[in-house]
Amino acid sequence: MIEAGEIIFGRNSVAEALKSGRSINKVLIAKGPRQGSVKEIIGDARGMGLIVQEVEPAKLDELADGQRHQGIVALAAPVTYVEVEDILAIAEEKNEPPFIVLLDELEDPHNVGAILRTADAAGVHGVLIPKRRSCPISGTVAKTSAGAVEYVPVARIGNVNQTLKQLKAAGLWVVGADMDGDKEYYDTDLKGPMVVVIGSEGKGIGRLTKEQCDFLVRIPMKGKINSLNASVACSLLLYEILRQREMKAK
Amino acid sequence: MIEAGEIIFGRNSVAEALKSGRSINKVLIAKGPRQGSVKEIIGDARGMGLIVQEVEPAKLDELADGQRHQGIVALAAPVTYVEVEDILAIAEEKNEPPFIVLLDELEDPHNVGAILRTADAAGVHGVLIPKRRSCPISGTVAKTSAGAVEYVPVARIGNVNQTLKQLKAAGLWVVGADMDGDKEYYDTDLKGPMVVVIGSEGKGIGRLTKEQCDFLVRIPMKGKINSLNASVACSLLLYEILRQREMKAK
Repeated sequence: MIEAGEIIFGRNSVAEALKSGRSINKVLIAKGPRQGSVKEIIGDARGMGLIVQEVEPAKLDELADGQRHQGIVALAAPVTYVEVEDILAIAEEKNEPPFIVLLDELEDPHNVGAILRTADAAGVHGVLIPKRRSCPISGTVAKTSAGAVEYVPVARIGNVNQTLKQLKAAGLWVVGADMDGDKEYYDTDLKGPMVVVIGSEGKGIGRLTKEQCDFLVRIPMKGKINSLNASVACSLLLYEILRQREMKAK
Repeated sequence: MIEAGEIIFGRNSVAEALKSGRSINKVLIAKGPRQGSVKEIIGDARGMGLIVQEVEPAKLDELADGQRHQGIVALAAPVTYVEVEDILAIAEEKNEPPFIVLLDELEDPHNVGAILRTADAAGVHGVLIPKRRSCPISGTVAKTSAGAVEYVPVARIGNVNQTLKQLKAAGLWVVGADMDGDKEYYDTDLKGPMVVVIGSEGKGIGRLTKEQCDFLVRIPMKGKINSLNASVACSLLLYEILRQREMKAK
């Protein structure tokens, strides 16, 4: 199932959508020779850092619901993505230490939606979602978020480790939850400017990303099952950060 | 959609299931005159505190997949329910203050499953689910729990307020999360023997149940959406209790 805010098809419509600056999750093109202006549009899309993916023509027929797509479809996001800098600016405006979540290859739209809902509630300034191997903001994400998708700024990022390096250079600490973490999450000082990395449902945080973490914290597991749902783990970290910040403010 | 561990149909099979002490979520009977031993079986089921519900005969046909059901079907749970006393005994055996969750009219099997998973991880001794207006342990619950349904003891209870009174008489504190709570949940001492009440997705904790709560605690909401998902709210409370207990032990 493809999940999307809106499906834009046909060369002119896709070209216009790109020019207008609309937030696009992905551009899909038909396998085989590229006709007419498709090559040019692909060039524009790649130049903007968008993912362009070749699919069977039948896939495009299905997405365009039988209408004429001319071998190209763009999947628009139901919200407008922002840039990482915008999120940092929001924190500065509020005069709060940055409080950011990075979703590292999360693929389940229900988890992404649930995390947006909790991120709104915990006062997170923005959420970072990689362009590759991660669930973008789709209709299902929007629905599961209970409307929070409208309020939590989301930036799509290219390379996770590069982004983390930039954020560290900007003074942020990187914290990740990991079974082999050094300390319990509630025994770790999380009051500073912080980016919280949440790993994928199956594999957790990737090795290279783990190396970028200033703290790897452990969520205690007292039972027989050895992991929590990704959105639950994320909620625990976000509210622990909120707790520590509010305690400090008292 | 009916969700069930197993569907038992026909007078003899249902009568045998009741005698064997199997955990039954509900007994369904066809509308209209009750034939043969159905009356007797209903009497037995009610005597055991089970819910007996009249449905259209077509519903039973569907559940029995066209096989002969003789006007009676029992929906079995995929696990064996325990009694409230069993849960208290588990806490005593472990020499820990009782740590219990009561789900007050939760209807979404995904939320119930997610809560069982977190309850296992947080070291909860058992979960209480009312027999009426609440999602029982079904196949979907079991799946969402990631296997935790096998490890977390679940008791089905009749009257919520009566059960809470009994637990209070046994020395437990009752804590509920509520938007109008007096204090933030992390500012409340939650180290004692505790039963955590989680309200329904739409309406929160019922009025009468709220009156039974010794503490009503607030989860701070810093954003625009005014509620958290029930399983996230539950997770935050359970892990805050765990955090306070572990801190105290240090």
